[in-house]
Amino acid sequence: MLDPIIITGCAGFIGSNLVDRLLAQGHHVIGIDNFSTGQRRFLERALVHPNFRLIELDLLDAEGLKQAFAGGQMVFHFAANADVRFGVDHPQKDLQQNTIATFNVLEAMRARGIKDIAFSSTGSIYGETDIIPTPENAPFPIQTSLYGASKLACEGMIQAYCEGFGFKSWIFRLVSILGERYTHGHVLDFYKKLSANPDELLVLGNGGQKKSYLYVQDCLDAMCWSIEKFTQKVNVINLGTKEYCQVNDSIGWITGHMNLKPKLTYSGGEHGWIGDNPFIFLDTAKINQTGWHPKLTIQEAIIKTLVFLEDNCWAVEIRG
Amino acid sequence: MLDPIIITGCAGFIGSNLVDRLLAQGHHVIGIDNFSTGQRRFLERALVHPNFRLIELDLLDAEGLKQAFAGGQMVFHFAANADVRFGVDHPQKDLQQNTIATFNVLEAMRARGIKDIAFSSTGSIYGETDIIPTPENAPFPIQTSLYGASKLACEGMIQAYCEGFGFKSWIFRLVSILGERYTHGHVLDFYKKLSANPDELLVLGNGGQKKSYLYVQDCLDAMCWSIEKFTQKVNVINLGTKEYCQVNDSIGWITGHMNLKPKLTYSGGEHGWIGDNPFIFLDTAKINQTGWHPKLTIQEAIIKTLVFLEDNCWAVEIRG
Repeated sequence: MLDPIIITGCAGFIGSNLVDRLLAQGHHVIGIDNFSTGQRRFLERALVHPNFRLIELDLLDAEGLKQAFAGGQMVFHFAANADVRFGVDHPQKDLQQNTIATFNVLEAMRARGIKDIAFSSTGSIYGETDIIPTPENAPFPIQTSLYGASKLACEGMIQAYCEGFGFKSWIFRLVSILGERYTHGHVLDFYKKLSANPDELLVLGNGGQKKSYLYVQDCLDAMCWSIEKFTQKVNVINLGTKEYCQVNDSIGWITGHMNLKPKLTYSGGEHGWIGDNPFIFLDTAKINQTGWHPKLTIQEAIIKTLVFLEDNCWAVEIRG
Repeated sequence: MLDPIIITGCAGFIGSNLVDRLLAQGHHVIGIDNFSTGQRRFLERALVHPNFRLIELDLLDAEGLKQAFAGGQMVFHFAANADVRFGVDHPQKDLQQNTIATFNVLEAMRARGIKDIAFSSTGSIYGETDIIPTPENAPFPIQTSLYGASKLACEGMIQAYCEGFGFKSWIFRLVSILGERYTHGHVLDFYKKLSANPDELLVLGNGGQKKSYLYVQDCLDAMCWSIEKFTQKVNVINLGTKEYCQVNDSIGWITGHMNLKPKLTYSGGEHGWIGDNPFIFLDTAKINQTGWHPKLTIQEAIIKTLVFLEDNCWAVEIRG
């Protein structure tokens, strides 16, 4: 990877962890964030590092983006509306913050002659597939959420830029990510509910929803590894672990770690919320065959996440 | 189908043919077009029909669209940037006229309580697939054009609205369409070149590019048939013929019909232009199994197209 490296969503969960990692490796990093959900505190170390430059910018500012990308050699495009839950109240959000923002990133790269892009896509893109675990070349999916649909739109545009403008891309389809700086998702929800009321826990769905998770440092290992190992024009790579858990498993690990025995109540049904995938479990044979494997189990990743939340009470209160 | 039926792109090639057909069947039709590429002359008959109402509107006018959709019962969404050639000079066009316009259509439907949408997608969406003929559930494709990528984005959003808002959709993945009111594509290009210079013809690519075509009335038959026969929440249906031709075949049919023997020169290579798919050939078993089959061969559809162009010199000069 040539310097400087641009990271959009640099103050986000995955982005800020990548910033710290690349700086520690001696890279120069240009970080872009609009701080709509990104946290300035996640950049505490980066902001005092001489090789880091922060540009506060909204990706919908297409002209500002072209200025910001000056001199960049590669882009990690992580900025996104990352809330998978179906946007019934704000269907425009995924279109703007994912699809249009990604178009602006691609156009800014083109304006600046930057050709390499790593993109955080999602396992949600497979919709309710019959093929589980799901490989990258699964049958043409039917989308079940605006979030998945917008990530599909982004993938398509990135691929078209590879074909039409000589770009090279690494498209990572992720399971849910856990670990330090995790700020939304079911582990946080359960942690907050149990902190507020240790005696009861309301679980959306029937608790049987199967989920796959990956630890954030494993995720970053896999991304950097993939950029070395996969050299096609378009590289689509599933990232996850070989195991999955049920929501009930994770409730057991969370309550065990917190030393609580709450009464569990279930809202019922197979789906936790509209547009929720009942089971995302990715076939990671493609990256595994190159020799990469995650270091942490899902249980270990959940415990890491809980320790982070315990040590960073402020992070628990970020979102509603 | 309940009245009135809304048709976006009502002055376009396929749209205007559908307008005439539905009016002839006694339906009430609300037609929407911004006349950027649509032709008022294609609506000559419709405009004097008491059951037709024309609303001149750009689909990027989201509020205007919500007004226009008042009372509508179903939408045929055909308006699009329909130029498949890679938009190196205007990459924003596909995003705006396809992706964002389709989002606006979905939001206008939601605002008006309209649930049923038929959408003209494309076989280009399969990219350069290894599976030929290509079925609807082909492996997850890699996009090779911004046009295909934008149609993929539209499909995904439509599917997500079906899941999230109770919509019902018929997504038609089309091969190239030929017939009356055809205004762009290789038959027109060859016809224009040969009309200007009957002695020579420059062919992009090596002439071996395989293509599949469908006659516009067969296409409309298939769409109306599908809306009756396919009753899932999301219905994705390939439309095409069971045969394909090579560009050289069609040149033979065109020059034969025009009674010309031009000297042929080839630019060479497998691709006609950047982002061109070397071979789009759709597996239409899904609709064929319900009993529908096209009436015209590709050769017959090309002759129909030539007769239209001969009878409508003005249509030959519409585009550059």
